[in-house]
Amino acid sequence: MIILGIDPGYATIGYGVIKKEGAALSAVDYGVIQTPKEESIPVRLAMLDEALTAVIQKHKPDAVSVEELFFNTNITTGIKVAQARGVILLCAIKHCGKLYEYTPLQIKQALTGNGRAEKQQVQFMVKALLQLRAVPKPDDVADALAAAVCHASFGDYAHRVLN
Amino acid sequence: MIILGIDPGYATIGYGVIKKEGAALSAVDYGVIQTPKEESIPVRLAMLDEALTAVIQKHKPDAVSVEELFFNTNITTGIKVAQARGVILLCAIKHCGKLYEYTPLQIKQALTGNGRAEKQQVQFMVKALLQLRAVPKPDDVADALAAAVCHASFGDYAHRVLN
Repeated sequence: MIILGIDPGYATIGYGVIKKEGAALSAVDYGVIQTPKEESIPVRLAMLDEALTAVIQKHKPDAVSVEELFFNTNITTGIKVAQARGVILLCAIKHCGKLYEYTPLQIKQALTGNGRAEKQQVQFMVKALLQLRAVPKPDDVADALAAAVCHASFGDYAHRVLN
Repeated sequence: MIILGIDPGYATIGYGVIKKEGAALSAVDYGVIQTPKEESIPVRLAMLDEALTAVIQKHKPDAVSVEELFFNTNITTGIKVAQARGVILLCAIKHCGKLYEYTPLQIKQALTGNGRAEKQQVQFMVKALLQLRAVPKPDDVADALAAAVCHASFGDYAHRVLN
């Protein structure tokens, strides 16, 4: 089973593709999609759509896992991230069809057993569970891989389909 | 010149197509795109994308005008609207290419001469400027037509491209 995890954003979007074989997990591909700040938001959304479509078509994931969005104090940034997340959801539903959403608490719980774990602890577990030599950088990539691992752990029974 | 105005939303999305010939404005087509609340958000975004693409391909607007998003007190609704707005921007930039954004204040100013005009006054002017027999319902349609008329008024000099 191939799972694509995505960390939503509009400037830097992390993605991580993992493979689940029985209980074994491994990293297939990961990185970031970046959109230049010189471009207008619609153009950046189109770039995101194109790049993410390419990732999905390359790896043909069986499921896409996206972290749920919470607003921080900056509403302007929040609107931009939510707009980009809309494009990510559209892209995933069009090209994959199987979409799952997890809260940060669920992701931390799945990876560390503690829903309130520190970021470093989650990143350590991403590295350990995927047998990576180092924690993937930037944080967006580690977050995307964590979302993918979370779906692998929750499996097809405890997930929550986006709504 | 054909202008498509859009009132962003995820459950009900107003659209209004107008024609500008010299100083004369007329309504070409208007209505709402609705997405069923029984469906998941990604499916509703895909429905919105499909329906809006059809509107753009039918009328081939020279410009798309979208009202700027402001958050009300309901953050959950705000995230959903912003996600839908991301899909709207993507759809417009892919199928039209010319996108303009106006604040509510600019739209009210363009239609009534008063940036703080009441909703009823704006709706009255939509009806008057487009020679309609009645104010289009629901409000989403009137808002979409107002955005289109605003772009027709500001023309190509005073607009602000989305960024």
